[in-house]
Amino acid sequence: MIQVYTGNGKGKTTAAFGQAIRAVGAGLKVFIGQFIKGKNYSEVTALKKIKNIKIEQFGRDCFIKREPNKKDIALARSGLERVRKIISMGIYDMVILDEINVALKLGLLKLEDVISLIKTAPQKTELVLTGRNAHPEILKIADLVSEIKDRKHYYKKGIKARRGIEY
Amino acid sequence: MIQVYTGNGKGKTTAAFGQAIRAVGAGLKVFIGQFIKGKNYSEVTALKKIKNIKIEQFGRDCFIKREPNKKDIALARSGLERVRKIISMGIYDMVILDEINVALKLGLLKLEDVISLIKTAPQKTELVLTGRNAHPEILKIADLVSEIKDRKHYYKKGIKARRGIEY
Repeated sequence: MIQVYTGNGKGKTTAAFGQAIRAVGAGLKVFIGQFIKGKNYSEVTALKKIKNIKIEQFGRDCFIKREPNKKDIALARSGLERVRKIISMGIYDMVILDEINVALKLGLLKLEDVISLIKTAPQKTELVLTGRNAHPEILKIADLVSEIKDRKHYYKKGIKARRGIEY
Repeated sequence: MIQVYTGNGKGKTTAAFGQAIRAVGAGLKVFIGQFIKGKNYSEVTALKKIKNIKIEQFGRDCFIKREPNKKDIALARSGLERVRKIISMGIYDMVILDEINVALKLGLLKLEDVISLIKTAPQKTELVLTGRNAHPEILKIADLVSEIKDRKHYYKKGIKARRGIEY
């Protein structure tokens, strides 16, 4: 099955990571490929300690506010290639592509490459894609789409991103 | 801050549990009180192994389809009392009240008791409430509300809940 978590609200990456926890609790093996992000966020530190979860990062930073460059594109594309290999190895029951929707939106990845990866993945591999602004073609081939809507956010009160909560 | 994850889509409990993972990765301590649920779900098994996360359950089963009885009410109310004590101990930075919105909707808990618990919690305690059909009064006092909308779901194709994915 192909799950997509998109929308402008808080909870997309955490929903995918909570899904990873549930999966390993049932004895499944999970690979997480994190696009865009390269920093050692709190969740990465915690996930690295959990048996049967492997996490790798394919970005340098959260650069949503700056223009991506060649280096960013190269990192994302080699990340996608890495995911393709991981899937073909067949040892992971669940493969999470965190922020891949953003990587697509920013033009770091080609839509046709992502679609091809999804379509050639074995039926038994659970794919979980996250990130706002999911492409309509991604939504079309997904089996599940949860749109997380920001109904209220403390950012608007001037609360800044907090360690352990937002990163 | 008070975070609420509600809506009819998949990802509410997993978003809260992913939030717990992020928190412990930053060195925070997390208490999870799970209302309604009493079975040893995969995520419970996995979370019990993680340092600095404590999880307790205040239900017998996922009984959304049957009428709650006195035993269910007693379990939920003693759970809320337990949470009140946990918060007053002041050792947990984050307290997750999983499915509390459903416990309220089913009448297992009184709105005034939940509101009072939220309002008397110290400012520094991050509260995370999950469950569909969050009460308007809960939404009003929340600092963050993410509504997870079901845009597409494989249930509609006849796919049943799968171990490691839905439970």
